[in-house]
Amino acid sequence: MQPLRSGSCWRAVLARARRAVLLAGSRWASDGPGNAQDPPAGAGELPGELDRFGGVSVRLNALDHLDPAAFKRALQAAVQKWRSEGRVAVWLHIPILQSRFIAPAASLGFCFHHAESDASTLTLWLGEGPSRLPGYATHQVGVAGAVFDENTRKILVVQDRNKLKNMWKFPGGLSEPGEDIGDTAVREVFEETGIKSEFRSLLSIRQQHTNPGAFGKSDMYFICRLQPYSFTINFCQQECLRCEWMDLSDLVKTENTTPITSRVARLLLYGYREGFDKIDLTMEELPAVYTGLFYKLYHKELPDNYKTVTGMC
Amino acid sequence: MQPLRSGSCWRAVLARARRAVLLAGSRWASDGPGNAQDPPAGAGELPGELDRFGGVSVRLNALDHLDPAAFKRALQAAVQKWRSEGRVAVWLHIPILQSRFIAPAASLGFCFHHAESDASTLTLWLGEGPSRLPGYATHQVGVAGAVFDENTRKILVVQDRNKLKNMWKFPGGLSEPGEDIGDTAVREVFEETGIKSEFRSLLSIRQQHTNPGAFGKSDMYFICRLQPYSFTINFCQQECLRCEWMDLSDLVKTENTTPITSRVARLLLYGYREGFDKIDLTMEELPAVYTGLFYKLYHKELPDNYKTVTGMC
Repeated sequence: MQPLRSGSCWRAVLARARRAVLLAGSRWASDGPGNAQDPPAGAGELPGELDRFGGVSVRLNALDHLDPAAFKRALQAAVQKWRSEGRVAVWLHIPILQSRFIAPAASLGFCFHHAESDASTLTLWLGEGPSRLPGYATHQVGVAGAVFDENTRKILVVQDRNKLKNMWKFPGGLSEPGEDIGDTAVREVFEETGIKSEFRSLLSIRQQHTNPGAFGKSDMYFICRLQPYSFTINFCQQECLRCEWMDLSDLVKTENTTPITSRVARLLLYGYREGFDKIDLTMEELPAVYTGLFYKLYHKELPDNYKTVTGMC
Repeated sequence: MQPLRSGSCWRAVLARARRAVLLAGSRWASDGPGNAQDPPAGAGELPGELDRFGGVSVRLNALDHLDPAAFKRALQAAVQKWRSEGRVAVWLHIPILQSRFIAPAASLGFCFHHAESDASTLTLWLGEGPSRLPGYATHQVGVAGAVFDENTRKILVVQDRNKLKNMWKFPGGLSEPGEDIGDTAVREVFEETGIKSEFRSLLSIRQQHTNPGAFGKSDMYFICRLQPYSFTINFCQQECLRCEWMDLSDLVKTENTTPITSRVARLLLYGYREGFDKIDLTMEELPAVYTGLFYKLYHKELPDNYKTVTGMC
């Protein structure tokens, strides 16, 4: 099982779980059924792994012998047992070819947490109040590349074929799973326009919710400043109607563009005139404390004397 | 069906689809079966909605009369028909209580695209090459609040209970679905510490992949600058070990903190001394061109003369 929701109160759930275990213990003396020593019939057929968050996980890999009705009886008995033991949640991990077990679980109150490729995960909340289980991914990530050539003052813009209005915009698209935003910008710019470029900085972030193109999920859209190192346009005819190097001042002036493109064009004009340090968020890779993984961190460049400062002195 | 993957080449897929329709037409003359006039037996039992992206969607709401075996025969016939018609993808939308149809679909090559709550969506790619269907959400979003009181030069920090090392950090947590990052920061700060605050700016963005706490998905973590308007700490005992107003210079100096917290502390020191405009990304709400929705846009503040400028003059 995953940790309970970070921030607010997964600790509270864990505390409730501990309390519930004690209650279950005391209840047992009077009620009889439903503790570890004396599981209800069938409960033993579903081996669950307990976790430190007060939940139990079941992997339905080796249940070929069970038909849906027998599975439902076993699950019902197991849930009764886990509830009496004070577990706060049950996670079912179901291979897609075992999906005959999903409807019986749903009839006992389980619902989908997520599913991908060849497996689904269902959950049932046993704790007090509404579920505090952490949700699944909520955002798709899109990235556009603002490829600006300081030598010619020209910026790379495209017009999509697939839109009603043919507005000038920056090339871009959705990140692949596990792809850093800078890499997405460089890849999408090349795929759409044939221009090779390098990541320079992050310029702007947009957050938008209930996105139809994101299956109703939220969309986080990043615009990066890229430095071109090839200049001959060879754009994707099937995706783009037009693609050109436009003078930045023309992009600032045109009304035939989106609000966000116009805004970023003005940002670039500001940076071009007064220094890109005025608009850039620079990137740095740092180590994560607990996982040992590395992450990319973006913020305004910090002057060297502040990187080394050790106080207000 | 959703649009094909934005950026690179969904147009290419659509073009392939059109080509395939022609091929199917010419094939029909020789092959015989599998066109709209003469569907294979059983295909008619699965009414599919065609879409402008070359795909077909099937909603399995009214199939109570079908058993899994009959469904598999009908789906197999329908897929053969759709393939011969040049459709590039099939989407199956399956209510959780109809999940007995998932395994039969999987045996025909369908896999999960996503599932949530009481329904799942499976897809089968019929086009050339690897699937170009857009993926589902790839990121969870977390937000921390750096609550800084300029009058006292103190910053609000906590130590989590649930970590091995008790390092000072900013309060924060995961965004709720549909929640703006500034609202998440204010909510999490209040839930964890009892401090009321207002959003001032976005300071830093972190991207991290294959996150164990994100079910293997990516994590986008934002740190916002918040202005406190209440000052009496009443922290969540179950979540936090300690919570205090710490002098910013002490947070800059301490080694008992995470790299990202230390970095943002230095950023705040820089902003406090030389002006927060040096470090802030300000937020503005703008209208989306096509959806009519509004979005939040974050970037370095643009001087007024650049907001109104209409060229390089």
